[in-house]
Amino acid sequence: MLSAREVLRPVVRQTPLLESSALSVLLGGPVFLKCENLQRGGSFKVRGAYLRIARLTEAERARGVIAASAGNHAQGVALAAASLGAQATVVMPAGAPLPKVAATRSYGAEVILHGTAVEDALAKACDLAEETGSIFIHPFEHPDVIAGQGTVGLEIAEQCPQARTILMPVGGGGLAAGIAVAASSVLPRARLIGVQAEAIAPVPGSVAAGYPVAVTPSATMADGIAVAKPGVLATTLIARHGVRVLTVTEENLSRALLLCLERAKQLVEPAGAAGVAALLEHQAGLFEPPVVIVLSGGNIDPLLLSKVLRHGLSAAGRYLAFRCKLPDRPGALATLLSELAALGANVLDVMHERVTADLRVDEAEVNLHLETRGPEHCDSVISHLRKSGYTLLFS
Amino acid sequence: MLSAREVLRPVVRQTPLLESSALSVLLGGPVFLKCENLQRGGSFKVRGAYLRIARLTEAERARGVIAASAGNHAQGVALAAASLGAQATVVMPAGAPLPKVAATRSYGAEVILHGTAVEDALAKACDLAEETGSIFIHPFEHPDVIAGQGTVGLEIAEQCPQARTILMPVGGGGLAAGIAVAASSVLPRARLIGVQAEAIAPVPGSVAAGYPVAVTPSATMADGIAVAKPGVLATTLIARHGVRVLTVTEENLSRALLLCLERAKQLVEPAGAAGVAALLEHQAGLFEPPVVIVLSGGNIDPLLLSKVLRHGLSAAGRYLAFRCKLPDRPGALATLLSELAALGANVLDVMHERVTADLRVDEAEVNLHLETRGPEHCDSVISHLRKSGYTLLFS
Repeated sequence: MLSAREVLRPVVRQTPLLESSALSVLLGGPVFLKCENLQRGGSFKVRGAYLRIARLTEAERARGVIAASAGNHAQGVALAAASLGAQATVVMPAGAPLPKVAATRSYGAEVILHGTAVEDALAKACDLAEETGSIFIHPFEHPDVIAGQGTVGLEIAEQCPQARTILMPVGGGGLAAGIAVAASSVLPRARLIGVQAEAIAPVPGSVAAGYPVAVTPSATMADGIAVAKPGVLATTLIARHGVRVLTVTEENLSRALLLCLERAKQLVEPAGAAGVAALLEHQAGLFEPPVVIVLSGGNIDPLLLSKVLRHGLSAAGRYLAFRCKLPDRPGALATLLSELAALGANVLDVMHERVTADLRVDEAEVNLHLETRGPEHCDSVISHLRKSGYTLLFS
Repeated sequence: MLSAREVLRPVVRQTPLLESSALSVLLGGPVFLKCENLQRGGSFKVRGAYLRIARLTEAERARGVIAASAGNHAQGVALAAASLGAQATVVMPAGAPLPKVAATRSYGAEVILHGTAVEDALAKACDLAEETGSIFIHPFEHPDVIAGQGTVGLEIAEQCPQARTILMPVGGGGLAAGIAVAASSVLPRARLIGVQAEAIAPVPGSVAAGYPVAVTPSATMADGIAVAKPGVLATTLIARHGVRVLTVTEENLSRALLLCLERAKQLVEPAGAAGVAALLEHQAGLFEPPVVIVLSGGNIDPLLLSKVLRHGLSAAGRYLAFRCKLPDRPGALATLLSELAALGANVLDVMHERVTADLRVDEAEVNLHLETRGPEHCDSVISHLRKSGYTLLFS
């Protein structure tokens, strides 16, 4: 793996390790963020892709490479191929976010939009590889890819040799397996903890079974780790190195993203915030400090970000949205707003609606968005309004 | 100023200098970001506040310190005072964002909410200082404050001795004056450029006059540099060291904030993005590389951020919102949506309205939010819809 690091040196950034005061206070001991969101291409993926393509023979590289991805792997392969002078083709689902498609193209890759799910894109990419003779670059099922991702672990060992816990997001398992292999030699005393979204968490079952077992996926905002079946190699390595795998809820993913942004000033994608979410969700006793959390990537569509921001503020009790019926007469809205002012809730948006199907003729409805100070404040606003006779509807 | 650096060392972070690939491509030469958004308290302000309070006599410090601010200076003073064991009182306007009030309190300062504008808070703070004998800590009108901010310049000289241009936001002028003084000895070949929001730009006129001249402020999102009259000391130093001052529009401030977030993965506040906005707004010829841009702070209310995100996307042609009248009959909306799909515009939100005052009985109105690929795509969507006979309203 040290040789992997040498191969990557000219292309891959040694990303900074930043101490987070907010998380250190929360845990009661030092917490550091390994900022792979600041990696070239916006995630750790360029590491594995570059090592894999660099280790092809010249004849293989001349045939070009092909990959399928809706996100970070697309950009990683495009960037790595461009650095190595190989032609890259990336198949992306037709609904992939426009900024990711644009970024992949900007690195010089040919982008083919195909199908609606990543699986459709994957099938197309395999067909194309067979037709054209291009080399298929799998996002995690290859030792060179895993070794490339593992260089994150080598950097952590240099930047924080005293680390006792490393938290890392787990999707297909390439990053976790790579770091586990690296840490076994350079950070033997560190405890390794992988984190999956509760909605798609096949790794604990797969590790128990000894081989990859697929789960039926539910919806998650953490598209970067939404993999229903982990890799064979990754599962074996994660089991062998005793990586413990925890899950986190969507609520905590959005709170974690917000915390990274607001306190550490780092933009991470939902999957990239999984390690921070674990710190919010699980008992502090699991995480012996110093803790290093791998922020695996920062590629999030600004439109999604804007939704997650409001969701994260809601989850933290700092944003409250509801509808409320009012008698349709002068002063009714003013009375409600004075009541809110007295409760210290800051009104952000008011939409006053006179005519909808479920309103009586003498009723009006108001849709309110409020800024609140936290969960207790939220609860107190809600219970005061109910005591004053208002009916609140949440949707 | 080297002694200032020694005084600050135990408390102030040496913030990282990150290369920005996106900005380097834009300029055609290396561009680095000096990340004071990662400073303790979320901005450079702790530097000046700490040096100022550290240089009080013990007797003075025992009387406590007092400041007025709606934002970063509040947190800087609170944090600096706590580190030095001084009692801090901070007067903030009643409408100050809740997260900033909470952060200031979390550093142990007593927060007094007073008035609606910063000027009200300032008057109250001066009154209180007189009554209680506490020492008033001005945000920029003091040599120790300016020397403290100037340590940013010393760090830039160490991290990027080859810098030829330094771009920095200018409000009261303390940061720019401090960096100018520092650079005159450690980076004598670098060209210094200050940046103000066009909406409140008193410094060029003040420098020309030789003393601070107030302007009538217009609205700006860059609250951190919204100062109608710069400091006497700062004006003198900015003039003496030949700092050139440019202005930037609100459009470019929001585009710059979005660029920092999306490409450099750094959260900055609107004022903190002023240097990046200057790169977007002015001719590249003004900025000889290597360029260092000071991102002065990252304290932005997530709710404001969510608005700026949509505004920045609009300004970049990646978000298009309009209203459109339709005949109120089955299929009318479906026809419009198919047309949009054929144009490659992704529909984010549709609000269909049947009854408002300005609609005829046989009309409906639809409010559409679309994701678009850039300014040309936006224009093409608009002109196609108009050709098809739709009337679009923008508000």
